[in-house]
Amino acid sequence: MRQSVTRLQFRTPGRGLTEITRDVAAWVAENGIRTGLVTLHCLHTSASLLITENASSAVWRDLEAWLDRVAPEGGYYAHDDEGPDDMPAHLKSVLTGVNLSIPVIGGRMALGTWQGIFLAEHRRAPHRREVALHLLGE
Amino acid sequence: MRQSVTRLQFRTPGRGLTEITRDVAAWVAENGIRTGLVTLHCLHTSASLLITENASSAVWRDLEAWLDRVAPEGGYYAHDDEGPDDMPAHLKSVLTGVNLSIPVIGGRMALGTWQGIFLAEHRRAPHRREVALHLLGE
Amino acid sequence: MRQSVTRLQFRTPGRGLTEITRDVAAWVAENGIRTGLVTLHCLHTSASLLITENASSAVWRDLEAWLDRVAPEGGYYAHDDEGPDDMPAHLKSVLTGVNLSIPVIGGRMALGTWQGIFLAEHRRAPHRREVALHLLGE
Repeated sequence: MRQSVTRLQFRTPGRGLTEITRDVAAWVAENGIRTGLVTLHCLHTSASLLITENASSAVWRDLEAWLDRVAPEGGYYAHDDEGPDDMPAHLKSVLTGVNLSIPVIGGRMALGTWQGIFLAEHRRAPHRREVALHLLGE
Repeated sequence: MRQSVTRLQFRTPGRGLTEITRDVAAWVAENGIRTGLVTLHCLHTSASLLITENASSAVWRDLEAWLDRVAPEGGYYAHDDEGPDDMPAHLKSVLTGVNLSIPVIGGRMALGTWQGIFLAEHRRAPHRREVALHLLGE
Repeated sequence: MRQSVTRLQFRTPGRGLTEITRDVAAWVAENGIRTGLVTLHCLHTSASLLITENASSAVWRDLEAWLDRVAPEGGYYAHDDEGPDDMPAHLKSVLTGVNLSIPVIGGRMALGTWQGIFLAEHRRAPHRREVALHLLGE
């Protein structure tokens, strides 16, 4: 059995989802792993990783609007040094999570037909984000 | 060290929790792994995996009702082609997550006494759901 | 490639976050793994694991207050045998999750500069909590 690690950099255009399925799949394929496990970790506290529908931009907009309702901007927060979108961004990151682990079967990640892997940016401004990846298998 | 992968199929009766702890435990035992790591991935965007109390159906009902309050049906969504329960189902899937990773110690998953692994169906209709599993260890 | 497992015990002072980054990092270092993967699993249904800002106690207070708004105490629940904070604690545990998986690169967990690993206690009373860890690598 062997393993491999890497770090991928992504530029986000501000709040919203960036699909990274292909980037992860390309790295898995490059490593020639047929059976194994890939783990992703987002190195930030105001961005996160999630899996959702890969085919409908309406889903992405609805998801973003819902996150705003669940963790709204406003006068709720003690921590606001970095602006009104900062603390809600931390909350959305905790709610959606920063880790994903996906089995690799038959040389491909075992994702469902409609599943895409997304880097979710929760700050208003564009950011440079880093995702660490670990791959194990043979 | 060795690894094993499989796919388990479950039929859900519509919205609610289906406990799958025994199915996963049986597969781990079958593989004869004493020390290792088991990872589960649900291949859907309107169902998910979660760990909660295994002994109280009141907890399951309260959890379901709470998910309905946090991600309600209603006129909030642009994405409603597949019915009013579709977008809330995507949101509940993101909120609860589709991955779990559990250490195996002494030949058993290191679950707490009261922890059960559940497949959460978020659509109203019965569905056939698939969970991919990866096991690593020796 | 080799692996190691352990169980860490923590005493929580009741509701709030306990940072455990150093405990986990110390165990990873002790095992001399340079490249690999560490997985944490919290064995409870009213406590959880999460990653958030490691430098601001205002963030921790805001996070706690937000969890109380999203999963409030009150007359919503059928399950209240163990007190009004019991069912909200189960909900917060599901919302934040009980698993984390973090790549190890260059002998250290690939955490971002501002990321800390926290054990989140969701009950009012102090508890003794257990976290199972699995480490894999070389």
